[in-house]
Amino acid sequence: MNEKTKRIDPRLPRGFEDRLPGEIAAVDQMIAKIKAVYERYGFDPVETPLFEYTEALGKFLPDTDRPNAGVFSLQDDDEQWMSLRYDLTAPLARHFAQNFNDLPKPYRSYRAGYVFRNEKPGPGRFRQFMQFDADTVGAAGPEADAEMCMMMADTMDALGLAGKYVVKVNNRKVFDGLRELLEIEDDQRWLVVMRAIDKLDRLGLTGVRALLGDGRKDESGDFTPGANLAPGQIDRILNLTGWGEAGSGSAGAANGITIDNMRRGNESNAALVAGCDELDVMNNMFDAAGYAGRIKIDPSVIRGLEYYTGPVFEIELTFAVQNEKGQDVVFGSVGGGGRYDGLVSRFRSEPVPATGFSIGVSRLANALKMTGNLGATEPTGPVVVLVLDKEQTPRYQAITSALRNAGIRAEMFMGNTKNFGKQVAYADKRNSPAVIIEGTQEREAGKVQIKDLIVGKAEAQAIKDNATYKSERPGQFECDGDLASIVAAVSALPAVQAWLERGK
Amino acid sequence: MNEKTKRIDPRLPRGFEDRLPGEIAAVDQMIAKIKAVYERYGFDPVETPLFEYTEALGKFLPDTDRPNAGVFSLQDDDEQWMSLRYDLTAPLARHFAQNFNDLPKPYRSYRAGYVFRNEKPGPGRFRQFMQFDADTVGAAGPEADAEMCMMMADTMDALGLAGKYVVKVNNRKVFDGLRELLEIEDDQRWLVVMRAIDKLDRLGLTGVRALLGDGRKDESGDFTPGANLAPGQIDRILNLTGWGEAGSGSAGAANGITIDNMRRGNESNAALVAGCDELDVMNNMFDAAGYAGRIKIDPSVIRGLEYYTGPVFEIELTFAVQNEKGQDVVFGSVGGGGRYDGLVSRFRSEPVPATGFSIGVSRLANALKMTGNLGATEPTGPVVVLVLDKEQTPRYQAITSALRNAGIRAEMFMGNTKNFGKQVAYADKRNSPAVIIEGTQEREAGKVQIKDLIVGKAEAQAIKDNATYKSERPGQFECDGDLASIVAAVSALPAVQAWLERGK
Repeated sequence: MNEKTKRIDPRLPRGFEDRLPGEIAAVDQMIAKIKAVYERYGFDPVETPLFEYTEALGKFLPDTDRPNAGVFSLQDDDEQWMSLRYDLTAPLARHFAQNFNDLPKPYRSYRAGYVFRNEKPGPGRFRQFMQFDADTVGAAGPEADAEMCMMMADTMDALGLAGKYVVKVNNRKVFDGLRELLEIEDDQRWLVVMRAIDKLDRLGLTGVRALLGDGRKDESGDFTPGANLAPGQIDRILNLTGWGEAGSGSAGAANGITIDNMRRGNESNAALVAGCDELDVMNNMFDAAGYAGRIKIDPSVIRGLEYYTGPVFEIELTFAVQNEKGQDVVFGSVGGGGRYDGLVSRFRSEPVPATGFSIGVSRLANALKMTGNLGATEPTGPVVVLVLDKEQTPRYQAITSALRNAGIRAEMFMGNTKNFGKQVAYADKRNSPAVIIEGTQEREAGKVQIKDLIVGKAEAQAIKDNATYKSERPGQFECDGDLASIVAAVSALPAVQAWLERGK
Repeated sequence: MNEKTKRIDPRLPRGFEDRLPGEIAAVDQMIAKIKAVYERYGFDPVETPLFEYTEALGKFLPDTDRPNAGVFSLQDDDEQWMSLRYDLTAPLARHFAQNFNDLPKPYRSYRAGYVFRNEKPGPGRFRQFMQFDADTVGAAGPEADAEMCMMMADTMDALGLAGKYVVKVNNRKVFDGLRELLEIEDDQRWLVVMRAIDKLDRLGLTGVRALLGDGRKDESGDFTPGANLAPGQIDRILNLTGWGEAGSGSAGAANGITIDNMRRGNESNAALVAGCDELDVMNNMFDAAGYAGRIKIDPSVIRGLEYYTGPVFEIELTFAVQNEKGQDVVFGSVGGGGRYDGLVSRFRSEPVPATGFSIGVSRLANALKMTGNLGATEPTGPVVVLVLDKEQTPRYQAITSALRNAGIRAEMFMGNTKNFGKQVAYADKRNSPAVIIEGTQEREAGKVQIKDLIVGKAEAQAIKDNATYKSERPGQFECDGDLASIVAAVSALPAVQAWLERGK
């Protein structure tokens, strides 16, 4: 093979994937349902391009020539670094700052779109994936945060997940205050504390107590160093989370009781009290609007460690799935967010408060698939008009057009075969409801044959021998050959009816 | 200002743009209409990622270190070059080749998506823009090309452009054959010929005759060198295009007559005759399915110079717009395509025929805007529940939730002001149908005030003085303060009714 005809291997770069009809249709339906909730809440769409200047994304490392790993970046012809967005929040902050004078304030917007991570791909970890965000910029009060939580709950309900989720709420200010009270100055040590609290659900009291103290040896014998806190410090943390001596976790506690517990003994710290006050405001709104039970104050919610400045929240799906070890665990988080008052301020002199949340679209779709709440995964194919005589193409085309004009999904077979069986096999593969057959015999008799592939498949299962199959021609019936009669007969097929109904 | 607080300029990289709610809604509606046509024709969606290996896109220049300009490319961590797709056809060819064994054949698919060009941006020329493509891969006959043309026509009709477009069809084989007959071997010279033919509509017979001959001086005195063909060669070309002595352009000719004219005197060339035969097959299908008049054979259609191997087609919008000189010109092309039998074969040993077309989404949206066929450009805003007393937030939230539960778009004002006028101004800016007002007075009386902003605006125009405005409170009416009464009153507002109707 010479250079000119060297063949290229058809493959995708690692970490990228094609999306097929079933998945596209299901995710489109899911996104339409989410959009309907966001619109009802008064949010309008906005869309930013895939590229931003790297400095606008806030990940530029001034010490190196190249923007940091984790982001796809390239230099424009004027030497400026541009990056593909890695989330939808940083571009929103840029958009708001750039259009500050024109936008209504508060500015309430939503957007679904692809984001990119230049990371090592793995099973279920892609370098291009979709997020669906909603944000309120220019609203300082916890009312805006509470609204986000309620909208997340309503979104889960709209998707059919009622009773299978909880929106968990915490406030970054509470732990900032606790850190002051405990006088933990070292950032690294505080990180160990936060990571330990994040594991309360998974490791329980004993495990976390070890991680806050001398460290923990897990079942495999691996040792994780601890935060080396004093017993009094550990008790204070665990009491605040509701996992201390007073109770066995906050799972059963009402929101008011949980907030009281967070406050108790810590009243001397202003930040912590302010955080609890905000949670009280949010809780009153949840109660007034009937969200108690669906939204829970939970002081063990951490959600990353930088960036957020106030309330943080997380949607957790509570139904059980098996992890890679075969153990039952809850499905877990499909999205979350919080208040980020500093992000827009990078562009402007005045402070700009903001809050929002993000749903991981693929992960949520996966959850819906598990619970049977994802839409149809295989499109109904077109009625296929078979081509048994090339000379008759205009006639076959006229039948096809007549069906289409009646709103019916239809195509004339375009492949390179006169073989009847192969054409029917194509229609089967397309999930077609029927094929239209007009050979010489039918044409001379002024008739066409319609083969209902759904009925045909069902009837064929009852037939044992080939001879019977050929004589009975399951699912097949004759119809007058004029266009009106063909359209009427095809329209009456149940699968075609169902398709037409769905389209309305 | 020190380094830490240095502010970043909020701006987009050149050639990229944000999309706002009105445009998003209008283009979404347009895309939904196009999709409905493609689905009816039996096409299913598929989506490829934004990145492909550069070699798969077919634009890699082996002589340079970097892939060629015009494409956004970067090197992956394994040193392989990846590029952002610059059209939707090359990724489709890769997808088909990669999934050859699993896909139905013919493979009929559509996709709308962003493509990227690393080019100098200009007015109306962006570096990220949307295309909407449909393709049939694995169908060798001109029937598949004819179907593309009919689908383009039906798409224009579905968008409300009936009578305002023509789908023009030519065949690359005809000019390949003509070139053989004229014995023009020099590629550059042939390019000059093709470019001249492409200008028949704009320059007319005299101008194009000059470009095929000694060259042409335009009104400004600029000289364009010609192809220096002999008079006999020029006549032969012009006769084929229908612009020769026999007629004054093909505009009025029926498709059959046009094809006969292309064939006349050129019967000795096999490629040219084969091209005409294909056009005959297509024309018979257009006639049988009732597309005569909407689809026209036009031998002056050129559509790029490489890549296509058979029929080529173009959607031209025929209504007049003014060009930059203030002259009336037709709006022109909003999409096109053709047969590209070589593209998939780059990946596979066997030949894989393919045909398809692409619509420029922004350009088409622009055309629809001009003809008044683009959908609503400004979303109806939410009903805004004003916050006149922070202590009453739970009550305002309860009203908001009750409206939402009734399917009404609503929000509680989240901004940082108690000022009544500023909150109403916010609602006005959001294009809200109404605001709900409950101050101390109303609360004590068990009432709320509803201000219909649409009616209010109309009535206010008739009021001349401020005192009358304040006493008459245009558009404002009182309603009982229980949730059911509020929901009933808001539901009855015409703008809310219209929004609810549209949502169904």
